[in-house]
Amino acid sequence: MFSGAQISLYPMTDDFVGVIMSALGALDPYRDRLRIETDDISTLVVGPPEVLFPAMRDLFVAAARTGKHCVLSAAISRGCPGEPDDAICQSVQLSGPREPLGERKAAALAAIAAAPDTATPIAAQFSLYVMGTGDHMDEIYGCIDFLKRSGVFDRSKNFCTKLGGDAGKVFTAVEAAFCRFGPSEGHVTIDLTVSANSPTPR
Amino acid sequence: MFSGAQISLYPMTDDFVGVIMSALGALDPYRDRLRIETDDISTLVVGPPEVLFPAMRDLFVAAARTGKHCVLSAAISRGCPGEPDDAICQSVQLSGPREPLGERKAAALAAIAAAPDTATPIAAQFSLYVMGTGDHMDEIYGCIDFLKRSGVFDRSKNFCTKLGGDAGKVFTAVEAAFCRFGPSEGHVTIDLTVSANSPTPR
Repeated sequence: MFSGAQISLYPMTDDFVGVIMSALGALDPYRDRLRIETDDISTLVVGPPEVLFPAMRDLFVAAARTGKHCVLSAAISRGCPGEPDDAICQSVQLSGPREPLGERKAAALAAIAAAPDTATPIAAQFSLYVMGTGDHMDEIYGCIDFLKRSGVFDRSKNFCTKLGGDAGKVFTAVEAAFCRFGPSEGHVTIDLTVSANSPTPR
Repeated sequence: MFSGAQISLYPMTDDFVGVIMSALGALDPYRDRLRIETDDISTLVVGPPEVLFPAMRDLFVAAARTGKHCVLSAAISRGCPGEPDDAICQSVQLSGPREPLGERKAAALAAIAAAPDTATPIAAQFSLYVMGTGDHMDEIYGCIDFLKRSGVFDRSKNFCTKLGGDAGKVFTAVEAAFCRFGPSEGHVTIDLTVSANSPTPR
């Protein structure tokens, strides 16, 4: 299994470099469990979902707390057949047989209930893509049903689902969507956008 | 068929609202062939690829010409089984039987050769997702082979392919990837990031 994300952080301010550099400190507690490489478009973060999502959350919360309008965009992937297995990606969430869809939805809701409070309200939207199977829409509809009951559901949009609420619950919801829907060993990706401090009315 | 994108434009400047508002004028020549709806996270643009991609290109070029570091991020989709057919999306590129992969690669290369010159150098990266088929990687590898010969290929990254060059050729390459790979009537999506004026060395 190989899992990780290409992540970009966009602070809408003249001091975008300063905001990014100061937010990067939030990744320090996770660095020994992730492989991180940066270029001019994005930062590759390789590791298991249970490290990757809290790391993204803490990075984004640090940027959002500057009060500037900030966006984090990420292409998140697991099980891509073109990527080599990597020991750093070994995950407790993606091994063993898959439970029935109903049990997975219940586990996802339990994860949300246990999410930490970050005192940082955010908006998010994402698309879940499940590849290599003929029944990908069953898993996607199952995920949407979980999201509607998650407490952070905002609305369905064309091509994606919009969430809103505390960053702790929102990132936990996206992690649950990523890990608990689609085959354990399957090729699953998420196109994620997270926003804070936007001046645009919802 | 339903096709379109959720698009966001991120100018990394205190005047991000001004840059976005001035760039939006670039969409005017396309507005009668697109359906456009904006909220606090993204703008939905519904229409056929041959209108959608030039519209995204002109919007981004207008923003990039301010000289500010700007990023456009888009979740682009066609054929999602959850979306209704829409007459505005009817496309000459997505009807009729699929030619063999080799012919589609040649047509994609011809499209690049005919792309307009915008005098705006950009960097881009994207992931192509083909759903609902068991052989999705064959189409993706076919697309990557086309990109390597496109003249705007930069490098393969984990989860995505990076391009660089004039905005005319880069957006044409992404449009060709979107339209010419995966089944004509299939569910195909692209997670696109386009960047200009980044201070980070490549």
